[in-house]
Amino acid sequence: MMRLQVPGYESLAQSSTLRYSFSGTGVNVTSALAQLGHKGYLVSTLPTNAIGDAAMSYIQKLGIIPSFITRSGDSLGMYFLENGFGVRPSRVTYCNRQASSFNTAHAEAYNFEDIARDIDIAHFCGITLAMNDNVRSQMKAFAHAVKRNGGQVVFDCNYRPSLWGEDGYTKAKPHYEEMLDLADIVMMNEKDARFILGMETTKEDRKEQLMELIPLVAEKYNISVIAGTHRSIGGNNTHSLVGFLFKDRSFSFSEKMTFSVFDRIGAGDAYTSGIIYGETKGFSPNKTVAFAVAAGMLAHTVSGDTPTSSENDILLAMTNEAGDVER
Amino acid sequence: MMRLQVPGYESLAQSSTLRYSFSGTGVNVTSALAQLGHKGYLVSTLPTNAIGDAAMSYIQKLGIIPSFITRSGDSLGMYFLENGFGVRPSRVTYCNRQASSFNTAHAEAYNFEDIARDIDIAHFCGITLAMNDNVRSQMKAFAHAVKRNGGQVVFDCNYRPSLWGEDGYTKAKPHYEEMLDLADIVMMNEKDARFILGMETTKEDRKEQLMELIPLVAEKYNISVIAGTHRSIGGNNTHSLVGFLFKDRSFSFSEKMTFSVFDRIGAGDAYTSGIIYGETKGFSPNKTVAFAVAAGMLAHTVSGDTPTSSENDILLAMTNEAGDVER
Amino acid sequence: MMRLQVPGYESLAQSSTLRYSFSGTGVNVTSALAQLGHKGYLVSTLPTNAIGDAAMSYIQKLGIIPSFITRSGDSLGMYFLENGFGVRPSRVTYCNRQASSFNTAHAEAYNFEDIARDIDIAHFCGITLAMNDNVRSQMKAFAHAVKRNGGQVVFDCNYRPSLWGEDGYTKAKPHYEEMLDLADIVMMNEKDARFILGMETTKEDRKEQLMELIPLVAEKYNISVIAGTHRSIGGNNTHSLVGFLFKDRSFSFSEKMTFSVFDRIGAGDAYTSGIIYGETKGFSPNKTVAFAVAAGMLAHTVSGDTPTSSENDILLAMTNEAGDVER
Amino acid sequence: MMRLQVPGYESLAQSSTLRYSFSGTGVNVTSALAQLGHKGYLVSTLPTNAIGDAAMSYIQKLGIIPSFITRSGDSLGMYFLENGFGVRPSRVTYCNRQASSFNTAHAEAYNFEDIARDIDIAHFCGITLAMNDNVRSQMKAFAHAVKRNGGQVVFDCNYRPSLWGEDGYTKAKPHYEEMLDLADIVMMNEKDARFILGMETTKEDRKEQLMELIPLVAEKYNISVIAGTHRSIGGNNTHSLVGFLFKDRSFSFSEKMTFSVFDRIGAGDAYTSGIIYGETKGFSPNKTVAFAVAAGMLAHTVSGDTPTSSENDILLAMTNEAGDVER
Amino acid sequence: MMRLQVPGYESLAQSSTLRYSFSGTGVNVTSALAQLGHKGYLVSTLPTNAIGDAAMSYIQKLGIIPSFITRSGDSLGMYFLENGFGVRPSRVTYCNRQASSFNTAHAEAYNFEDIARDIDIAHFCGITLAMNDNVRSQMKAFAHAVKRNGGQVVFDCNYRPSLWGEDGYTKAKPHYEEMLDLADIVMMNEKDARFILGMETTKEDRKEQLMELIPLVAEKYNISVIAGTHRSIGGNNTHSLVGFLFKDRSFSFSEKMTFSVFDRIGAGDAYTSGIIYGETKGFSPNKTVAFAVAAGMLAHTVSGDTPTSSENDILLAMTNEAGDVER
Amino acid sequence: MMRLQVPGYESLAQSSTLRYSFSGTGVNVTSALAQLGHKGYLVSTLPTNAIGDAAMSYIQKLGIIPSFITRSGDSLGMYFLENGFGVRPSRVTYCNRQASSFNTAHAEAYNFEDIARDIDIAHFCGITLAMNDNVRSQMKAFAHAVKRNGGQVVFDCNYRPSLWGEDGYTKAKPHYEEMLDLADIVMMNEKDARFILGMETTKEDRKEQLMELIPLVAEKYNISVIAGTHRSIGGNNTHSLVGFLFKDRSFSFSEKMTFSVFDRIGAGDAYTSGIIYGETKGFSPNKTVAFAVAAGMLAHTVSGDTPTSSENDILLAMTNEAGDVER
Repeated sequence: MMRLQVPGYESLAQSSTLRYSFSGTGVNVTSALAQLGHKGYLVSTLPTNAIGDAAMSYIQKLGIIPSFITRSGDSLGMYFLENGFGVRPSRVTYCNRQASSFNTAHAEAYNFEDIARDIDIAHFCGITLAMNDNVRSQMKAFAHAVKRNGGQVVFDCNYRPSLWGEDGYTKAKPHYEEMLDLADIVMMNEKDARFILGMETTKEDRKEQLMELIPLVAEKYNISVIAGTHRSIGGNNTHSLVGFLFKDRSFSFSEKMTFSVFDRIGAGDAYTSGIIYGETKGFSPNKTVAFAVAAGMLAHTVSGDTPTSSENDILLAMTNEAGDVER
Repeated sequence: MMRLQVPGYESLAQSSTLRYSFSGTGVNVTSALAQLGHKGYLVSTLPTNAIGDAAMSYIQKLGIIPSFITRSGDSLGMYFLENGFGVRPSRVTYCNRQASSFNTAHAEAYNFEDIARDIDIAHFCGITLAMNDNVRSQMKAFAHAVKRNGGQVVFDCNYRPSLWGEDGYTKAKPHYEEMLDLADIVMMNEKDARFILGMETTKEDRKEQLMELIPLVAEKYNISVIAGTHRSIGGNNTHSLVGFLFKDRSFSFSEKMTFSVFDRIGAGDAYTSGIIYGETKGFSPNKTVAFAVAAGMLAHTVSGDTPTSSENDILLAMTNEAGDVER
Repeated sequence: MMRLQVPGYESLAQSSTLRYSFSGTGVNVTSALAQLGHKGYLVSTLPTNAIGDAAMSYIQKLGIIPSFITRSGDSLGMYFLENGFGVRPSRVTYCNRQASSFNTAHAEAYNFEDIARDIDIAHFCGITLAMNDNVRSQMKAFAHAVKRNGGQVVFDCNYRPSLWGEDGYTKAKPHYEEMLDLADIVMMNEKDARFILGMETTKEDRKEQLMELIPLVAEKYNISVIAGTHRSIGGNNTHSLVGFLFKDRSFSFSEKMTFSVFDRIGAGDAYTSGIIYGETKGFSPNKTVAFAVAAGMLAHTVSGDTPTSSENDILLAMTNEAGDVER
Repeated sequence: MMRLQVPGYESLAQSSTLRYSFSGTGVNVTSALAQLGHKGYLVSTLPTNAIGDAAMSYIQKLGIIPSFITRSGDSLGMYFLENGFGVRPSRVTYCNRQASSFNTAHAEAYNFEDIARDIDIAHFCGITLAMNDNVRSQMKAFAHAVKRNGGQVVFDCNYRPSLWGEDGYTKAKPHYEEMLDLADIVMMNEKDARFILGMETTKEDRKEQLMELIPLVAEKYNISVIAGTHRSIGGNNTHSLVGFLFKDRSFSFSEKMTFSVFDRIGAGDAYTSGIIYGETKGFSPNKTVAFAVAAGMLAHTVSGDTPTSSENDILLAMTNEAGDVER
Repeated sequence: MMRLQVPGYESLAQSSTLRYSFSGTGVNVTSALAQLGHKGYLVSTLPTNAIGDAAMSYIQKLGIIPSFITRSGDSLGMYFLENGFGVRPSRVTYCNRQASSFNTAHAEAYNFEDIARDIDIAHFCGITLAMNDNVRSQMKAFAHAVKRNGGQVVFDCNYRPSLWGEDGYTKAKPHYEEMLDLADIVMMNEKDARFILGMETTKEDRKEQLMELIPLVAEKYNISVIAGTHRSIGGNNTHSLVGFLFKDRSFSFSEKMTFSVFDRIGAGDAYTSGIIYGETKGFSPNKTVAFAVAAGMLAHTVSGDTPTSSENDILLAMTNEAGDVER
Repeated sequence: MMRLQVPGYESLAQSSTLRYSFSGTGVNVTSALAQLGHKGYLVSTLPTNAIGDAAMSYIQKLGIIPSFITRSGDSLGMYFLENGFGVRPSRVTYCNRQASSFNTAHAEAYNFEDIARDIDIAHFCGITLAMNDNVRSQMKAFAHAVKRNGGQVVFDCNYRPSLWGEDGYTKAKPHYEEMLDLADIVMMNEKDARFILGMETTKEDRKEQLMELIPLVAEKYNISVIAGTHRSIGGNNTHSLVGFLFKDRSFSFSEKMTFSVFDRIGAGDAYTSGIIYGETKGFSPNKTVAFAVAAGMLAHTVSGDTPTSSENDILLAMTNEAGDVER
């Protein structure tokens, strides 16, 4: 997507300038992993005009290899971002989403079998699942191809109520279940289990709900790793995150990290990339979840949607001590 | 429309910043006339989100009275502008046009009868005519209401091939003829007569074609005033304009004005506003066309699509002498 | 006034760039009420030059109807604003105030009788009262005209010591009393009662002083509604506000709202607009004061002097919970 | 003065940003000579607030020694500059001029006798002469002190009709004559002789008028050197300058230099500084006038009022050949 | 190199802002060819710090594949660019050149044999040849490896007097001859033949010198293709270029293209890329030289050192007609 | 040095713009004292190119008298600054340091005897001591000259491990001891005593170590005044400082000041300038250390390396109360 952000703290009606960049869950996760040393590809469609050219340049700048990007159509999803300040929340206005080149690409736009042979892990996002039947069937076809070729499927639930509309959970459930059946690593928490999958619990505390429901999900859909976060929002622009990771029937939890927020969007994708990185590196579950939550924390302090931290940055942040200037 | 312009001379792929404003033929003509002392209204639909709020503020800033603007939908037509330099042409990339709130407003969005009672002159544009059946029927209904209530209809042909697609002239002709039948003042030149209306001429010179065809158009559709320009493009970023005005069976031509161009978009609308102003003020045809072409020339030197010149600015520019700084 | 603000946190001596806008108590209150759905007019005089043109455009952008603005003279009051950071305070440098077109407009610049017939409520500010005899007599003439025509007079004490000079309270008192006699709604607190009106109290606590003196003021000058705030300033750029409203012999107090401050100037005007809005909407006193203090709080988080919040924004802020990004 | 310039080609009503700097004839001439190796002082008064601090920093940045600057009052003259483009002229809006700290400094603000002892040459400007009686008498007192102490007086006529008002030439003449009587070097041309001094000529050609009148002026007021320029304005933003210098009863003329203009304001001061520099260096009259006109030409290509060229830059420009990038 | 450019037309002493990008002959040629559809690699060394990271991102944004870039050292060559205007020339200030990571990379930094196996054409630049013995021997080793592996060597003479110092031509000649012996395609003109290679001619006209000397060079060093340009500089910021190409014992010349210049640096590299493109595509010599000179012309109108034109842009520019805005 | 700062919170790889200024310990201390009313000179060497010109202008803008600055070489030390946010630390990348004009100035670049006669106090910095033998011997020669001429030597330890490399403390010690022997006022704390001078202590608490070691240093090297700070870093971008001053065998400590940080670099130099100012003004040790720590605190809130506070600003900040806007 094209992100068009009003600089500073003005509204769209007050300003006359925008800063733009290109992002999206796929871009963010792939770029974060490229920063950490992986080779990352994006499977998408960009318009054949100046906007598509700009997106292409930007994606390459992030270190993403553009080999699997096709070009057709004339439109890219966009969102406008007006920064909040303190008690005034940030505001996002989407436009042009359904008409995007990605959402209108024809059914055979991608050669998933070839792509699947070239990669080890494919990341899928619940936002894509909400788009339309065409995109959903492409997404599932790709996931099947990955499994057929021995790759791993990562699925990030990322349920967005506004995209599914009325009775959204009911509409979404079968598609989510299909993806969960294919997935090796799943990003979710107890809310997804309760609301999308309709699982019930008598517990009231979030963590207790989590510890009851996540093991049931892992078992039912045969998922190796389930990970996610609990976020709480404090005063004066600070957020807190606790990460969890469920694997081999046991939970690992990170410490609670509390930090000032500069740019909240895309921070969840940094957490996801940390989980994938830890898993591929063979980190212990404790280290993986600590690494992922530090990656997520840092992404809140970085300009733009897309995480930019190196492994060293993240390892340093895991110590959770504010430092003096590095010189 | 929302105009999103890359500042300076970079491309969308090189830059990371945009300047935005809100314009369109209707905005430009109305605002130009408001600068000249008329009360100007816009009849349109803006989205009910932050983009619509920003457009609303901007239009008011231009001195347009917003009483006839309705709010619905969530989308505004957009175009991206990359400035050319010298031999490298400027580039416009449209997006989101058909899905705009204006183009999707329901059939009874406006109370044309009430509006028509409040106004003396209504300006219509051939670009709107190219949008879709819904918009076309609203446009014609409004024009009929204006005539019923004793107002004047101004119609600007503004034919854009890319909007009408294949066999565009054939598709467009009946709609153009319907508007020409209603119009009192028409902006066009011999190309519109030849290509849209299918009129034939054996002349080869543009001016001779013009002088043959325009009187025929005026007679056939019973049009009081037909006006337009001939543009030629020189080296080093200079353009030349000659204006014409046909009225009471006789032509008036302006001198040829030659000038450096800063922002070419919207300059035609300044010419139109000059013609309307001259007609409403009772200028002689010679003065009207000289005033209009000076207004058009100045609009090439002003930042943004929308003309900003005062009557004094235009009268001064009619003398066509470059001056020292005014202090 | 023209506000010329150094961007970021540099001083005038460090920077080379200014951001400008146009504001003032009248602009702020009127624009805030226009955002909330009222029709708002400004009664003022702007210079007949490029600065006046720019002010005119800006005021229209804010949704203010310019019908009662006259143009004469060549000067506008200005202030330069250098942003503070943390322990370093912001700094305001006024210039050109007495010589402004508004302050030098001739005695019959405005037709107050006509204006008064068109409006329901007129807002007056103690800053204007400090300008000069000419402006003071215009202000009082207008207030009398409003009363004669059945309108309501709102008077905001806004006492600024630097404008009244030595023995300021003594000079100011008769003018303030004249306005209080005419006023229906008054913005003030116990300091104004003590220092301008010279009322005495043996209480030491601010709230106790307030609760003793405000009822006496309301009775003496026959004022329907008196409202105001108590502000306290904390560390790390946070302020707290408690609003009060005295009506029908009883006090309503808001909760204490604590928040980070982005742009403190003009926030008092947002509170005033909230009181006026609540009164015209027939809110309960409790709701009015809660609404007003939330409006005031939000105005501290918005760029520029002029409040921009919609009714929904304010109702949401009344819940006083920091939220995640709205998307 | 404070120069507040709208960046790019927008108007004050379109933009929201200003670039500011500090200039004036005295600043420009002194700074230009400082760039050329002279020690330069400014004799002026700046306000005791943030604006005065900023002006002080700026003047030091230009290499001017601030020893003779006093601080009092709270106001600085300002002008707003909107850049023209092509046929659209630039526009200057002055404000706050008479109220400036300089124009209101008390009669004994400066110790002219001490200052005169420290300097060799003092430059005076006709714009200052137009201000008020107080400033005029300070200016003359300083000029007398310079002469008493053996220094040279340079006087630049710089007649501005808008500052002298009705019957301006009549009012100005005695003051100009007083300065001419004291001056060693005078900047003027035939227009000043005709209109300020009321001299008559039967010639019609500007150059013939010049060659008739300037020798008479030199003789009457006993002036060693009179210099000035003839400017003509071409299309496409080009100006031409011819410089002249009259000394020892004979004229020297420069070639006609034609060039594109970037920032016209202050360019005349660069010419003046070139004349002073040539005279103090003992250049031949031909070289002085060629140097001065090249300095003036370059100043049209430099951002801001104040010339920035080094001696090498000017010597290179005297060759009048456009060059490739210097690398 | 890192290019640090003062925005607009200010000097380093006037401004406080820089725009930066990363370029160099190798970057420019490779990126230009990547825009035209080739796969392009850069063989270089970037520092292992934030500056190197930024250069890496930038190079990827340009579409260059970074596989052959090594990271070591802590320094990148830089140049500061101050834009000239009209008669005032642009100014380039180099710094940090000899100490750059590229110039200090150890002798075995690159595996040239492997690289040579992966590529078809390698481009070498005379600027690199001027650096130091270490770099020179790396450069020659690479060129030999390319030849051994059946690739083509392109050598661009790009002689810079300031880099070779006193007796530069004498020092440079043997190194140039070594490269010419290896080269298939050479960018040069008659000046290089005369001054570097010491060839003599009795002709006075540049074109005649060219037509005498270039065939001798081609024969002596056994070069398939020699190409280059003649540039002339006009007033008002216009340059003219004529391209030539010598192949199979015959010359092809382009038309003389005249155009306004926006950013002159790097334009020669666009010409080089056009020659390489035409040769690899099998264009006729006439088409190749026309294509190359149009590519070079366009590069003068594009922001930054690095050409950005697509094949379509260049084909359009070959028609040499200024066009109206593309919409 | 030239400071090149990425604006906002982007990294060098994300941004394309830099803000630059010129600073360094010497510049900062001298400018801070110039703000407080001292005459301040800088003894340094700047390159003879556009970068040196820009540095020269900037230093004059800060109020530093440039008489003792020589010009030679072509290089200035630089550092790039990327702002951190919250838990993400700021990052400094130095380049071009050893090759700077200052570090390569020939041995007799400065006439220290003349300079020493003109000044009362000379400030020396441990960073300079780390550069190279040439600079070290110049520095010591200057310090000896100052002592010979009856001036005071201030020495700021400012030990930077990265500049001294391996076994840095061992290498540095003899040079530090030489400077300490000459110094009257020394900026240091217990870490310098322990690590550079190798003093031992059995205490574990920083303050106890300080109180044990500093008196020993003062006695051993015969130093009149030793001063420094203890810094602690809190969450949410707040730092705390406690200042100390040891004189006449007794310690004075400031209160602990806690504050939000905007620009941390150069804040230590503000503390140093406060100590020098207090000593020259004859403040009591308690007032000096309170003044210095308030000066240091304010410098954390000011944009750029260089302190800008006036005496009034600092006296106000010593009250340590956050205030409302000053108007």
